[in-house]
Amino acid sequence: MQIAFLGTGLMGAPMVRNLLKAGFTVIAWNRSRDKAEALVADGASVADTPTEAVRNADVVITMVSDGKAVGELIDAQGVAKAAKNGAILVDMSSIKPREARSHAEFLAGFGIEQVDAPVSGGTKGAIDGTLAIMAGGEAAVFEKVKPALAAMGRPVLVGPSGCGQLAKLANQGIVATTIGIVAEAMLLMKSAGADMNKLRDALTGGFADSIILQQHGKRMADGDFKPGGRSVLQLKDLNNLLEEAGSLGLSLPQSELQRERFRFFVENMDGGELDHAGLFLELMARQNG
Amino acid sequence: MQIAFLGTGLMGAPMVRNLLKAGFTVIAWNRSRDKAEALVADGASVADTPTEAVRNADVVITMVSDGKAVGELIDAQGVAKAAKNGAILVDMSSIKPREARSHAEFLAGFGIEQVDAPVSGGTKGAIDGTLAIMAGGEAAVFEKVKPALAAMGRPVLVGPSGCGQLAKLANQGIVATTIGIVAEAMLLMKSAGADMNKLRDALTGGFADSIILQQHGKRMADGDFKPGGRSVLQLKDLNNLLEEAGSLGLSLPQSELQRERFRFFVENMDGGELDHAGLFLELMARQNG
Repeated sequence: MQIAFLGTGLMGAPMVRNLLKAGFTVIAWNRSRDKAEALVADGASVADTPTEAVRNADVVITMVSDGKAVGELIDAQGVAKAAKNGAILVDMSSIKPREARSHAEFLAGFGIEQVDAPVSGGTKGAIDGTLAIMAGGEAAVFEKVKPALAAMGRPVLVGPSGCGQLAKLANQGIVATTIGIVAEAMLLMKSAGADMNKLRDALTGGFADSIILQQHGKRMADGDFKPGGRSVLQLKDLNNLLEEAGSLGLSLPQSELQRERFRFFVENMDGGELDHAGLFLELMARQNG
Repeated sequence: MQIAFLGTGLMGAPMVRNLLKAGFTVIAWNRSRDKAEALVADGASVADTPTEAVRNADVVITMVSDGKAVGELIDAQGVAKAAKNGAILVDMSSIKPREARSHAEFLAGFGIEQVDAPVSGGTKGAIDGTLAIMAGGEAAVFEKVKPALAAMGRPVLVGPSGCGQLAKLANQGIVATTIGIVAEAMLLMKSAGADMNKLRDALTGGFADSIILQQHGKRMADGDFKPGGRSVLQLKDLNNLLEEAGSLGLSLPQSELQRERFRFFVENMDGGELDHAGLFLELMARQNG
């Protein structure tokens, strides 16, 4: 199976290395060519243009910054035209669900099927090959690319086209909300004279335990809000989640509350570049409001 | 170390068994005597009255239904008067933090020190000896009873008197809020045509994962809301949490939102006897509201 990998940045590069280790043939392309060149030592070929990369590929993987960048690749930069009829495009970028569905429709016009497959787990997960890979698309198409995805992490087909992106937004909504309630628990204990880290310790392994309680709770206890996950991106994800919910006619009160709070934190408290655990600061600010 | 154990019901009985297994001497008392008698085969003695049970005890453990029951034991039923000067009372019942502080004060008048130490983990945790034990009180007192607590689970001193109870409420607040956001994520995916169980699978091991996502998320996907944890008790815990927050002058927007929603679910949707994962039904009802 020949794979074209478009976008070999911080996430893409280690993902390519894991594909190569698993025995796949990879042609890499990146906007700044030197980042693709760095993968030659690992066994990748390098293409000058996206169209050159995808010409003989069975699978095209895109890992770029946003939906606009994906749209440009497949349309203006000629990927859809250049790729083989019957090729599968796996978009692992994090973009809006409706963008993913629109790309799938566009690609179908060229005989190319798409799987949206954003990831969670950061550069560590990309390096270790343990990314959570949330996929949307047709089951038969997903099965064809699953072995390649499995080289990079743990792929799960969640639902039809766009549902991988939607699952990623759902993931972000749960994270934002859990951060907020951990902040309330921490502030409550602190106000009663308890040690915030002892709460984390005491709840370990129980129903209230989570990675958020342990990692972001520690940030709150330590007052250390360097990112990590920037609040401005958390706000963007909540906006996208609620845009999608709105188009489905859904009212999601907790996500809406968190969106308003992150908006206040980013716009009124200059918290955009702080870690999303910084919502603890927004909660503190409320106490005198 | 001689331990008097008052209240050997569903939780108390297996806790006594674990104390006996660890080599402690236990005198058990229960309101309906047969439940205490059942522990004789395991090596416990049985007392006719609370005062008889506590007379020679170094440590008195109470495990009863609520703060009123604890208050009656120590006052009207004579435990404070009958216990040795220097004895330690460990109240493992789940009661209000302010009740715990008031009991500690009352007991201090008799030369008895108190540790509040409510638990989480249910009958399974009680049987397995793996309860999360959240303790409030003086460090030196806690250290004295820690070996006994360690026979029943994992004790952590969180802060001064009342903080064990407060940590338990914080635990419940996190649980209620996580259930709510998992419900939003599930509804979002379902509305987009995805399989709700696939979302659970896809998020496994990531930042959004939790016991709630896995266990309560499954209840939502299966539409199975038999308790488990009854919603009427979740509402009681949220009320107690917010009462305590109010007395500390705190505003906790997420806990407040969940309290209103559980109140609606219990009072207007007859959901009190359903599992707290039934908040999914409240979220569904909102969509047509």
